[in-house]
Amino acid sequence: MHEPDRSERPYEGDVLAVTVEHWDGAKREIVERADSAAIVAVDADDRLVLVRQLREAARRELLELPAGTIDGDEDPLETAKRELREETGLRGGRWRTGPAVYSTPGFCRERMHLFLADGLSEGRSTPDSGERIEVIRWAPAEVEARLGEVEDAKTLAGMLLYLRERR
Amino acid sequence: MHEPDRSERPYEGDVLAVTVEHWDGAKREIVERADSAAIVAVDADDRLVLVRQLREAARRELLELPAGTIDGDEDPLETAKRELREETGLRGGRWRTGPAVYSTPGFCRERMHLFLADGLSEGRSTPDSGERIEVIRWAPAEVEARLGEVEDAKTLAGMLLYLRERR
Repeated sequence: MHEPDRSERPYEGDVLAVTVEHWDGAKREIVERADSAAIVAVDADDRLVLVRQLREAARRELLELPAGTIDGDEDPLETAKRELREETGLRGGRWRTGPAVYSTPGFCRERMHLFLADGLSEGRSTPDSGERIEVIRWAPAEVEARLGEVEDAKTLAGMLLYLRERR
Repeated sequence: MHEPDRSERPYEGDVLAVTVEHWDGAKREIVERADSAAIVAVDADDRLVLVRQLREAARRELLELPAGTIDGDEDPLETAKRELREETGLRGGRWRTGPAVYSTPGFCRERMHLFLADGLSEGRSTPDSGERIEVIRWAPAEVEARLGEVEDAKTLAGMLLYLRERR
């Protein structure tokens, strides 16, 4: 079993914390953060659904897969369905479970659960107050053409999964 | 221009820090971490080269693209070549620049620069003392079969890029 010899918690914030672990003489600084769910969502016209929003860490708006943080012991699939509905209004449809991956395992404990959804029905979005989200829909040719512009790791993986299923 | 109203630095560690930014009343906790480079490396037999190592944050060994942290103002391509050589011994070859992506733009400033390399020459690896790295090589059929097992976001994107070029 892999366990540290000892650990401390030098930072405890609202949505993240830092643990310092000591492993056989080596020090590791690890970010604690809730797990997340992200969706490769395909609408009735076979277009990939993306969201554009301000990402303060990046100092600009980024285009990303719809995604969000898992609340407590919420089932990741329920998180995915809730976030997709809130951000885009899309609901219903057929859902499949994709890989669950560490986003940056070198220094962070967060795992991201990927889901693939199609046959979705249109509805009204209900973003959190203060969230300003623009919904974008791209057909396969557009996803193909814009692959080099993507600025987010999960979105790169999601665009490649979307294209792979359309071939 | 997108800038916070004010910010604090409640945690300053050896390899990461936490900044708290205030944006028009909203508080954002942001992890500062050096940018990184990762390589979709293909050997002379057209196999994808991966590395397996203990990831303390995950409490187990993970299979990943060769990758590492950019030292100061090192050029990302030089980081990529250096890390690939250190971890696998592979050198030379043809290099192309892939997308540069935020690994987790919701809370972290780190950008990851992806590179694609093939035609690589074999050599001796020189891992850092304390790094225990196993090098794995998978042919296209194996990458295809094991896509569902991958546990790291950059490696999922890298495996999909590798397969896409082999079709």
